[in-house]
Amino acid sequence: MRIDVVFGGASLTTAEVAGRVVAVIDVLRASTSIAVALANGARAVIPVETPDEVVMRAKALARNDVLLAGERKMMPIPGFDLGNSPIEFTPAMVDGKTILLTTTNGTPAIAGTGGARDVIIASYVNYTAVLTMLRAALRGGADITLVCAGRDRQFALEDAGCAGRFVANVSKRLVGITMNDAAQTCAMVDRRYGDQIVKLFEASEHGRALRDAGFDADLMACAAIDSHPVIPLYQDRQITKLGPDRER
Amino acid sequence: MRIDVVFGGASLTTAEVAGRVVAVIDVLRASTSIAVALANGARAVIPVETPDEVVMRAKALARNDVLLAGERKMMPIPGFDLGNSPIEFTPAMVDGKTILLTTTNGTPAIAGTGGARDVIIASYVNYTAVLTMLRAALRGGADITLVCAGRDRQFALEDAGCAGRFVANVSKRLVGITMNDAAQTCAMVDRRYGDQIVKLFEASEHGRALRDAGFDADLMACAAIDSHPVIPLYQDRQITKLGPDRER
Repeated sequence: MRIDVVFGGASLTTAEVAGRVVAVIDVLRASTSIAVALANGARAVIPVETPDEVVMRAKALARNDVLLAGERKMMPIPGFDLGNSPIEFTPAMVDGKTILLTTTNGTPAIAGTGGARDVIIASYVNYTAVLTMLRAALRGGADITLVCAGRDRQFALEDAGCAGRFVANVSKRLVGITMNDAAQTCAMVDRRYGDQIVKLFEASEHGRALRDAGFDADLMACAAIDSHPVIPLYQDRQITKLGPDRER
Repeated sequence: MRIDVVFGGASLTTAEVAGRVVAVIDVLRASTSIAVALANGARAVIPVETPDEVVMRAKALARNDVLLAGERKMMPIPGFDLGNSPIEFTPAMVDGKTILLTTTNGTPAIAGTGGARDVIIASYVNYTAVLTMLRAALRGGADITLVCAGRDRQFALEDAGCAGRFVANVSKRLVGITMNDAAQTCAMVDRRYGDQIVKLFEASEHGRALRDAGFDADLMACAAIDSHPVIPLYQDRQITKLGPDRER
């Protein structure tokens, strides 16, 4: 069995995902927002490439059932219901809704996973839930690919750190696991920062850019390990919560 | 001033290299072979995209002056004078010669540096020579980009480790240096392995593949820090030694 990490989601090759269990990581902030939305009762999150496409697809849905969400250059898109801040995706806002989401890095990374056996969305807020699922897959003989979405096609420290946390723990007490060079390196980033996720964000370029733009509360939310324990599953072009629906 | 690392040389953007001092790193083995060739008296190394182009361009040169070199899938190319093993580039073989070199990862990375102020070729065997040049550039106010060629478009641990060694030492006793996320991460890889370059190669996928293919002696040569102290400068589509010619 293998655990591989790939940097830069937009340029995935078929060999990197075919038949594998793939986790897409865009910690700041798409992965986090998706987990928070589903944990807070959203029916589904649909990743969409462009803002125009969000508007177009929203027309096919009842206005009361749908929320338009996303960012460009970190900022909310004019006319949309939500930006890409996880703290906006409250139960009052998202319960029962279908969210059309477009983001700069997360959306292309998710779209690039065609051919995978399963695609899940991973972040710190749903870390242990996803870890459990990945361990089960690995025990079952599956190969795993962790896709670090990165930022504007570039390597992002926070995604590498989160991937490294999975790498370090997914194969514990399992033998015969092979990992690629990127996976080994991510484990070094995880070892460097451990549970100090806020420090990791302070070191990262994207984290600093978000802080400078006033998104401090988002950084706190994205660093809250296991605060939203869901497994977001991407299937038939939409992301829904794996497992039985939460009690209403 | 900035020190940035970019993973995957083939996909460089103009912004990543424009006006900068760029060092291309393909430790296993193109960068090493180039440094060894120039240190051992080669007149120039010309990076060429394909084996066919090597053959074509060789016809324009006197047969006695030129060597055809390179690899595909690590192996020497049939009919060529040399493969991509640094230990083949002996003084007896290369002195006074122009070498046409085609390799899988190094050549595309070098070709992608258009618009850079200066392009140099870096590896462990010419580490301190290149470090000195990069420190001088940084003191002079230049921004630096270290390009990790990687392997088949993938992140390679050995290139990251070598880049990290530059990152860790180039800015010592200088203030106001900014580095990107990839540069910080490479410094972690360097810290993990230090001078144990052979161990670094044993952990790397490309290193293991070379060992399995019988290239153990190449790995030893590529790990020999400062064994070939030259600064290979890429200019006008050829790589020559910076500074006065070696004594004959």
